[in-house]
Amino acid sequence: MTAEATLARFREYMVGPARFMNLLSCFELGIVDHLRAKPGSTAEELGAAVGAKAAAVEQMLFLLVKEGFVARDGTTGGYALDALAEVDELDLRRPLEFMDKIKVTTLRQLFYLTESVREGKPVGLRELYGFDGDLYEAMTVHADLRASWGRLMDSVTARIDPWFFDNVDIPAGSRVLDLAGNTGLGAIHTVKMKPSPGLRVTTFDLPGREEACLRNFREQGVADQCSFIGGDVFVSVPTGFDVVLIKHFLNMFDKDEVFAILDGVRDALEPGGQVHVLVPIYSEDIKDSCTVDYYPSFFLGCATGRGGPQKLSTFRSWMRERGFTITNTLAQHPAELPPDALPLQGILSATKTA
Amino acid sequence: MTAEATLARFREYMVGPARFMNLLSCFELGIVDHLRAKPGSTAEELGAAVGAKAAAVEQMLFLLVKEGFVARDGTTGGYALDALAEVDELDLRRPLEFMDKIKVTTLRQLFYLTESVREGKPVGLRELYGFDGDLYEAMTVHADLRASWGRLMDSVTARIDPWFFDNVDIPAGSRVLDLAGNTGLGAIHTVKMKPSPGLRVTTFDLPGREEACLRNFREQGVADQCSFIGGDVFVSVPTGFDVVLIKHFLNMFDKDEVFAILDGVRDALEPGGQVHVLVPIYSEDIKDSCTVDYYPSFFLGCATGRGGPQKLSTFRSWMRERGFTITNTLAQHPAELPPDALPLQGILSATKTA
Repeated sequence: MTAEATLARFREYMVGPARFMNLLSCFELGIVDHLRAKPGSTAEELGAAVGAKAAAVEQMLFLLVKEGFVARDGTTGGYALDALAEVDELDLRRPLEFMDKIKVTTLRQLFYLTESVREGKPVGLRELYGFDGDLYEAMTVHADLRASWGRLMDSVTARIDPWFFDNVDIPAGSRVLDLAGNTGLGAIHTVKMKPSPGLRVTTFDLPGREEACLRNFREQGVADQCSFIGGDVFVSVPTGFDVVLIKHFLNMFDKDEVFAILDGVRDALEPGGQVHVLVPIYSEDIKDSCTVDYYPSFFLGCATGRGGPQKLSTFRSWMRERGFTITNTLAQHPAELPPDALPLQGILSATKTA
Repeated sequence: MTAEATLARFREYMVGPARFMNLLSCFELGIVDHLRAKPGSTAEELGAAVGAKAAAVEQMLFLLVKEGFVARDGTTGGYALDALAEVDELDLRRPLEFMDKIKVTTLRQLFYLTESVREGKPVGLRELYGFDGDLYEAMTVHADLRASWGRLMDSVTARIDPWFFDNVDIPAGSRVLDLAGNTGLGAIHTVKMKPSPGLRVTTFDLPGREEACLRNFREQGVADQCSFIGGDVFVSVPTGFDVVLIKHFLNMFDKDEVFAILDGVRDALEPGGQVHVLVPIYSEDIKDSCTVDYYPSFFLGCATGRGGPQKLSTFRSWMRERGFTITNTLAQHPAELPPDALPLQGILSATKTA
């Protein structure tokens, strides 16, 4: 790459934050909705409708006109959706939920990325929220973080779990442990997507999650098949299970902690016991990976101060090293994902080596 | 544009903030400097050198490897500058100064863009700094904003002012008024870049700037040619001048305020009196404009809560409408700018219509 090309690429990076928020704000203000309802609206009409000055609306729309998302009629001064009109509103909701999550959990916090990397903690949560802990703990206290994150996670889980359960084998009548299963959604999905006579699923997570988890089991009508065990995966993993699910969890930790988790699971299983890991991954060729554009700085700067996705091959070698025999690995194919999708997910299935 | 292409474009927007801060943080941490000095360093060596865990360094470098900025040797695990090695360190300082300015004045503040557009104020300054006012006022109080902004502005002015003075005519012996001239740099550049017998330059700005301005005049040895008048451009503009300079100012205001400024200048000049405007502009074809990617949300969300650049043709028509005869307009040509340059500057020269 020439020096010129590198510097031009820097410019792309420089405009990233402003471009992100300019686009999102046009939705937040209601400009896009108003243009959908009333194509041809002028900046004055839009300003009156969304509660902003016409001059500000005009400034906000320059970028969307540049992108071809919105068109401006030079004669009337009216605006209308252009490329945005071609996108299904349900499809548009997906990136917008993600953008809101980035705005709330990431944008301001990134200011402290360098300090977070040095301290191994998400310093932004301390500086912005006075919270000493990780994002997942902060969400239990701060409703704004929880609301934005929860909306996104519900959508993401609704898309990912069917794919995950389609691609893992859970023998009939298994006793399943959902490690770090939060408030039970993974357990509920297991009994609904992998039903079999005698199947029992236990959510294992911090004791504070028990009440919400059991309530979810009752509300979803699965209380007779699901239960909760409170504990800490770094202290001990409950025994007596045939299958352990580790979903959206290993990516939150550095290698030594991942090893501690895997060791705990291995020791709790009988030989031949199964484990299925669902985890965001980087492409094997990092140059193809779009996950890399967001997740390193999100995990280090905003979520946990450590961890992050790895290549599927890295997780595979870590599992082998800790006494598992890999039976299957699967990566989502980028071409099968929506064009706005950021994380690429991987599945690793393994048995405890005899 | 197809719906697929639009959604793919949304993904580019989504990763903007994280990509921005990941790159900048690799410089802030000293990773790039260390790789320049010691090519082939491993993540462990880099971590030890910059005070971070090896795993975190590895995560931070994924993106730079993806971009081809840095290369990773698969055999040794060592990293070395790749495309970054081809860029002159002085050239690199330019975008890095700009990125620091974006980090400090823009990144967190953008979180409040929607509220800022609605209120017509930079709400982020209130939320983050407890400051009620615009960025320029906030800088007089908050050293972090001032330091980052000042570093960038000194560099930018050093590049732009020679181009500006090369392209405006200031008759020998003129009495020049530098409107909103801050602490005198424009006046100093006028006497140094447009020297002539009898030339006198007066900086006009808020009275609070007088002391620093006069000190600058003394330190630069121009106290006998330069003076200061305190006042408010929206109240009245001093008379008795042949030439008025309006640099980096009109873009801070909406049209009605720009008109008030132009009216004040027109009324203060004799017919035939000259005005030279220097202002960031958008390209006439907005699709070519990279200024549009940053400045609308910067001005609305982070600086003044209003204003923003306009096309050169817009400023020209505004000046004509307020009683000026345009004698010359000039836009920087994007091809003449460094590839990382964001703002495109324009010059408008005019005389008061007789």
